[in-house]
Amino acid sequence: MKILVINCGSSSIKYQLFDMDSDVVMASGAIERIGLDMGIMSHKRNPDTDDEQKFKFEQPIPNHEVGMELVIAKLTAEDTGVIHDTAEIAGVGHRIVQGANLFSDPVLVNDEVKAAIEKVAPLAPLHNYAHLAGINVAQRLFPNAGHVVVFDTAFHQTIPAHSYVYGVPYEMYEKHQVRRYGFHGTSHRYVTKRFAQLMGKKPEDCNIITVHLGNGSSLTAVKGGKSIDTSMGLTPTGGVIMGTRTGDIDPTILGYLARTEGMTIDELDEMVTKKSGLEGICGMSDLRDIHAAVEEGNERAKLALDMLCHRVRLFIGGYLALLGHVDGIVFTAGIGENDDIVRHDVLCGMEELGIKLDVEANSKRAGEHMRITAEDSRIPAFVIRTNEELEIAQQTVSVIAPSK
Amino acid sequence: MKILVINCGSSSIKYQLFDMDSDVVMASGAIERIGLDMGIMSHKRNPDTDDEQKFKFEQPIPNHEVGMELVIAKLTAEDTGVIHDTAEIAGVGHRIVQGANLFSDPVLVNDEVKAAIEKVAPLAPLHNYAHLAGINVAQRLFPNAGHVVVFDTAFHQTIPAHSYVYGVPYEMYEKHQVRRYGFHGTSHRYVTKRFAQLMGKKPEDCNIITVHLGNGSSLTAVKGGKSIDTSMGLTPTGGVIMGTRTGDIDPTILGYLARTEGMTIDELDEMVTKKSGLEGICGMSDLRDIHAAVEEGNERAKLALDMLCHRVRLFIGGYLALLGHVDGIVFTAGIGENDDIVRHDVLCGMEELGIKLDVEANSKRAGEHMRITAEDSRIPAFVIRTNEELEIAQQTVSVIAPSK
Repeated sequence: MKILVINCGSSSIKYQLFDMDSDVVMASGAIERIGLDMGIMSHKRNPDTDDEQKFKFEQPIPNHEVGMELVIAKLTAEDTGVIHDTAEIAGVGHRIVQGANLFSDPVLVNDEVKAAIEKVAPLAPLHNYAHLAGINVAQRLFPNAGHVVVFDTAFHQTIPAHSYVYGVPYEMYEKHQVRRYGFHGTSHRYVTKRFAQLMGKKPEDCNIITVHLGNGSSLTAVKGGKSIDTSMGLTPTGGVIMGTRTGDIDPTILGYLARTEGMTIDELDEMVTKKSGLEGICGMSDLRDIHAAVEEGNERAKLALDMLCHRVRLFIGGYLALLGHVDGIVFTAGIGENDDIVRHDVLCGMEELGIKLDVEANSKRAGEHMRITAEDSRIPAFVIRTNEELEIAQQTVSVIAPSK
Repeated sequence: MKILVINCGSSSIKYQLFDMDSDVVMASGAIERIGLDMGIMSHKRNPDTDDEQKFKFEQPIPNHEVGMELVIAKLTAEDTGVIHDTAEIAGVGHRIVQGANLFSDPVLVNDEVKAAIEKVAPLAPLHNYAHLAGINVAQRLFPNAGHVVVFDTAFHQTIPAHSYVYGVPYEMYEKHQVRRYGFHGTSHRYVTKRFAQLMGKKPEDCNIITVHLGNGSSLTAVKGGKSIDTSMGLTPTGGVIMGTRTGDIDPTILGYLARTEGMTIDELDEMVTKKSGLEGICGMSDLRDIHAAVEEGNERAKLALDMLCHRVRLFIGGYLALLGHVDGIVFTAGIGENDDIVRHDVLCGMEELGIKLDVEANSKRAGEHMRITAEDSRIPAFVIRTNEELEIAQQTVSVIAPSK
């Protein structure tokens, strides 16, 4: 069975085509700069194999429809393709950022589902409207495939009210659904299942802290395989400090800056999401640039790095306290998988809490997974490569062919 | 040596007169509703002794000057007083909420010091202007006493930059001093010293988590006797959820409510400080009311209680991770000293982290101090009654008579 996974942003489409009989990625790629003068498409045939072929195209891509037609063209063309006809694709899995409290599982797309995604779009306006555009185009172009939506928020629907309710007036939750939703759920769920597999256990027998550190970062406390707390909140700006986002802060900072700097609430909202975080501290949001700058003695870059590790460490400690017993800690995503300095600074000196980092093991390059704590660490910590697309593909199969 | 400790709010004056030769409180009281139609004064002679006498007065108190004159009248009158003449008072210790990064120690008041307190007043407008009014009045009425200012923020001036800098654009720190200041420093310092004393150690040999839970609440990570992190931030609204304050939250909640509820930034600022927290969740901010409502099956009250315990637990775990090794946890202030249910829900199930609550010991009424963990708890937890006024009196003595 072949499944196409689609992730539509406001000006981008990312895609991966899976052969689910072998869990192999047949093709993958990304279209960017949709709606601008010149669009860019990168496309891979047989990615991450010895037969990998890379392609790059530049052409105006005025909208998602043109973009999606281009994806189909590349997937089916003689020189770049891997299939002959779109009819070979049995299912299309759509990544949706915000499902609010309406979706705790993946579901088949119908008009009601699309209306619900639109209804909660004000909670994630940059994402959900783009996702809807992508769904509509894909439904026209793959009329015979089963379209399934998989939500970033779904895994966190098991979080109890005492965590998901914020300490703002309760009517703001009732009237405007102000609450913690949490994101990266597909990734937290994937590494939870993978960790359990590695330990030879069922997910429901595992308490885990999953640490997804990338351009956006979130941590999740997983109890018996279920999310019971996560750092991101109403939006992906909450939690720990990120590339350009503040994470949780004292909310009076906004009123104070309105008075002293004369900023409007819209400017403040943009500031905390797009001009803050590591970028706001040192002018760089990519950890590779920041490490290079630290090497050169850039103190502001060191401050940004230390702030990130400090905030992540606080959440790990918090979730240790919340869970009481923890079977493992899992680092994943761009920074979590590749940045041994961050992992070291986050976990070092926690022996009394049961975590004994193996500094040498941690400094190695991780493959699909790698243990980074000593043999006698009461709580093991791992790096596990996340695979949100595979998770979406698997969930799509579970909906369109539940017997599989 | 007699020391008067004064805490001026915008419409209140609290005072305690100490005989420092015996650390005894000779008299104490509070004036409230200054500037309103009718003011109220409560006054105690020999408080908390067998000779305690309580007095209550009602009369218009138009301003702090009239209020302070009333304090002097009651302290020196035959029926209510404990001294003959204000000249007996060697020093006046003034509590100041916000000293920003200008003060890390108590100092003798002079024009420069007053100018500095005024300079940082925009960071705590409700408090610092009232404090200045109090200082000016007291200087006129006690012209021969040494006036000393003791800052709530001073103890936290040892917090490193990677904690005190927020992930907002760094220029907001440079231009507008947006950073974590932390509050309740006098209380955190007092219980730190007292804990060390109880353990027969020096404060500099102790790592402690101090948990000040009252109408305002904050936690501090104390390393070697010094604050290295605290939950409150730019203002006392940051950190954990409180009586009417949110604590730290996803800052995009404000922008979202501006769009959906049409609130202005000033309304939002007021909401997060005065209409949120436990009050915002269940309409009650006093834990005693909340417990009574929980008993009656009020689900919203239970939610508020659980939210408080959840947030405090997260910070305790975070500070365990930050400190690595912890010698003790200290609960203090109104809720911390008296609410065994909160202490239980915050600490239970943390055996694997080295904390083994003694449920029976915890359920007892604390005296000046009480241990609440089992004998074999690796990390002991205590209740210690805070005494910010005594701490201010002692610091006042240390400034006006350093040899004492």
